[in-house]
Parts: sequence; structure tokens; C-alpha cells
Amino acid sequence: MADKPLILVTNDDSINAPGIHNLVEIAREFGDVLVVAPDSAQSGMGHAITINKPLRLDKVQVFPGIDAYQSSGTPVDCVKLAMDILLHRKPDLLLSGINHGSNSSINVIYSGTMSAAVEGAIEGIPSIGFSLLDYAFDANFEPCKPFARQIIKTVLREGMPKGTLLNVNFPKANSAEEIKGMKICRQALAKWKENFVEREDPNGRKYYWLTGRFINNDRGEDTDEWALANNYVSVVPVQFDMTDHHNISLLNSWNFES
Amino acid sequence: MADKPLILVTNDDSINAPGIHNLVEIAREFGDVLVVAPDSAQSGMGHAITINKPLRLDKVQVFPGIDAYQSSGTPVDCVKLAMDILLHRKPDLLLSGINHGSNSSINVIYSGTMSAAVEGAIEGIPSIGFSLLDYAFDANFEPCKPFARQIIKTVLREGMPKGTLLNVNFPKANSAEEIKGMKICRQALAKWKENFVEREDPNGRKYYWLTGRFINNDRGEDTDEWALANNYVSVVPVQFDMTDHHNISLLNSWNFES
Repeated sequence: MADKPLILVTNDDSINAPGIHNLVEIAREFGDVLVVAPDSAQSGMGHAITINKPLRLDKVQVFPGIDAYQSSGTPVDCVKLAMDILLHRKPDLLLSGINHGSNSSINVIYSGTMSAAVEGAIEGIPSIGFSLLDYAFDANFEPCKPFARQIIKTVLREGMPKGTLLNVNFPKANSAEEIKGMKICRQALAKWKENFVEREDPNGRKYYWLTGRFINNDRGEDTDEWALANNYVSVVPVQFDMTDHHNISLLNSWNFES
Repeated sequence: MADKPLILVTNDDSINAPGIHNLVEIAREFGDVLVVAPDSAQSGMGHAITINKPLRLDKVQVFPGIDAYQSSGTPVDCVKLAMDILLHRKPDLLLSGINHGSNSSINVIYSGTMSAAVEGAIEGIPSIGFSLLDYAFDANFEPCKPFARQIIKTVLREGMPKGTLLNVNFPKANSAEEIKGMKICRQALAKWKENFVEREDPNGRKYYWLTGRFINNDRGEDTDEWALANNYVSVVPVQFDMTDHHNISLLNSWNFES
């Protein structure tokens, strides 16, 4: 079996979400699969890691014939636990998802799904995050599958450039035929306008629920938002070097002394 | 007071950490200050936001003469709460820190301090994250102060390019004179090698503590790690567009069909 690719699968919606079950089904067609995923939903965890409390990592029977572990940690913790405790060699591929809900545009920064993929890339593993634009528990993942297979096959063949990973988002569709194809995109420069809902607890103390509205003023037709709005699968190459290289010379021109 | 800059201050070590007290002392020299910070330590929270539980936001008396609120949320939640609930106009500056411990290199991705500053930049606020290379509670922040003042003064004068923020790290020093100056840098391409410590609970179940070792194979003398190792303050311009623009053409050359 040494010639079969070793594929690490994780997500942020928990090991019992339909999205990861669909992803495991696809992944097992391509190689030996190990699943390490959170034991409960971890949406919006970003690149959080757990420093101040210990983590559980328990073997579970969730996917027939597939080694699977659940952890009390974040998605990034799951990748770190897999690498340090469970795996004896670097996996050939890391797949995260399929997320219930979009991780296009600025969501890449808030998303536990994408942060797990970023962590994979930091570890030098070709890594892909998959998300479907449907938050529902019973979302239809079938139309995503032929595209996910194409992308996985291509990445296994081509590898990934160092420091890069893929952020793949699928439009909501009833069938694969409704989807027009794939577009390589850039992240749309959009943001969330937060709107906290204020409530009062039974003791009269205020508390707040985070809600928000997505605002996209980026009209570019080369963005992930454009692709998804026009029924394409969006594929964005993502990097974790956050240096704004273009502005180094500007900062060097500033006079900090006066 | 309308002509005085409005400065939002936050951190990830909690509102009662010495680092934010030192930062508030500096900030009040430049304008009207509002503090919104976590009520307990939130290190390693990355860009986490709180979706699945409500948040507290309570006015507190911590800094004499300064409006201050503590929240049960993450550093990014604190920025969002300040923007939506407390502030009636966009602040002129967001300052996060001073963090007890380094946020250079890849730490920018794991750091709650830096994620709060990233959130400020997403909101269009000139934003700066400050960190000192000393994890100790009683770290000496005095040597940082003249440099922090220079940077704040310069950013208030020059503004920040759209989509950019600053990641400032101070070397550990006994006096400002020991620090050679400031360097505009890029993020060193380094990483953490995780190493989980395995323990057994009183019921015989295993649990794991995350520890790690920082590995820097980036020998560049234009990096933040080089600057800090050579006793300079490192200033890295950071962007939140995570698109790897250079690799869009490569991906377009891949044949996804076969």
C-alpha cells in the first residue's frame, strides 16, 4: 500500500457533519485516508490553537473502514495532533471540509476549515479547503463531487507550489450540470458589517449575539464572488506569507524620526 | 475635542495585563482612548470570532480617566463590539498589545493580538499590533516606548495604505539605548514544530498539551527574525488579501480535466 497516497481529512463543522462524510467518500477513491476532526462545531475559529487547556484525541468509529479520531481542539489543533501523534510520515494531501457554508472572499480569514488547510500548507502538505454555499445540515453535496475529484486528481499529479494552498468554493446547485465549470480566481475584497443583537438575561444583564451582513463592493470579474454568483466553482490560490511586500518601499520612505 | 484623534486599544492577554496598561499610557498622549479588551487571556486565538454563544461587554474601571470595557469574546470580537456598539465614528487608529511575547514571522497567523489589528484594517482603520519578545508578566516595556511613540506619530501623520497594517515587534532590552533602531521587514518564512506532551487523567484517559519549537530556516537579512536577533525593532507591513496572485497563472496552466 506504500504507493497509495496518504490523505489527511479534517473540517470545522465536526466529525459528524455530512460535509466531511461526503469528502471522505471522495478521498477514499484516491488513497489511504486518516480523519482527525473536531468533536463539535468550530465554525469561525480562524487559526486558533489551544494553549491554555489540554486536548482530547479519541479514536472513533464513524466512517466504515477508515481510521478516524475526534478531538476537543480547533481545526488547526487537529492538524497538529495528526502530524505529531498519529502520522508516521507527511501526508500527500490534506483535505478540509466540505464546509457547510461559503468560505469565499474575506471568510478565508475567519474560517476554521480554511485555517486547517493553511496549517497543512505551513507543514508543507499540498492542501485544499472545500466549501459549499449552503449552510443547511442536509445540503446537497452531490453536484460538488465531480469537480472535487478533478481538483484532487490534478493536485496529486501536479503538487502545489511551496507556500500555497487552494480555497475551493462550490455554488449551490441541484445537479453538477447546473454548474458551468471552474474558475481560478482572486479573493474578492469584501467584508462583513457586524450587527450585534442585544438581549437581556433573566438577571437584567445585557448580552450580545454576533450577526452580520456581507458587503461586496469589489466588482472584479476575476474574483471568487463573481465566479460563484455566475455558477462557477471558484478556486483561489492562498498564501500564508502575510507580508505586504508592495508597501515595504513606501514604509522605508517614511520619516519615523520627526 | 473633535480635533483629537480617537484611538481604540485592545489586546489578547486580557484587559488586566501589564502590556495593555503600558500601551494605554502611550496612546493617551496622542488622543482620546477607548479600551475594549478580553476579560481573560486569549493568546493563540487567531482570527476566531464567537458565533455559537453570546458575548458579554461590561464597562470597567481599570485605567484612570479612560473609558474601558471588557468582553468575554476573542480579540476580534472586541474590535467588532467596539465598532458596532460603542463607537459613533470610525477611530483614527487601532492599537493592539503590547503583547507579552513575540508575534514575528508565522506567529502573525496564530496571534489574537495581530488578528485584532487585522480586523481593524479590514474595517479601514489604520492599525498597529505591538509585541515584546518577553512572555513574563513583569516584562520591561519601558525600552519599547520611544519607538512606539515614533511609530504612532508617523502613522497618525501618514495614514496607512488601504488593506495594510503594521506588525511591530520589540526586542527584549534593559533600556531603549540597547535597541539599535527600527527596520522595515518582511515576515520570516519560519514555522512551529509542534510537540504534544501526553498525560493520563485520574481515570486513565489520555490528554495532550500543545508545546512546540520555533524553526527558522529563512536566512534573509530583510526578515523580522533577523532584525530582532540583531536588536532592532521589526516593522512588517501586513495585508489581509491572502490570494497568492503570483500563482494564478500557474493554476490556469493546469489541465483539470484529465
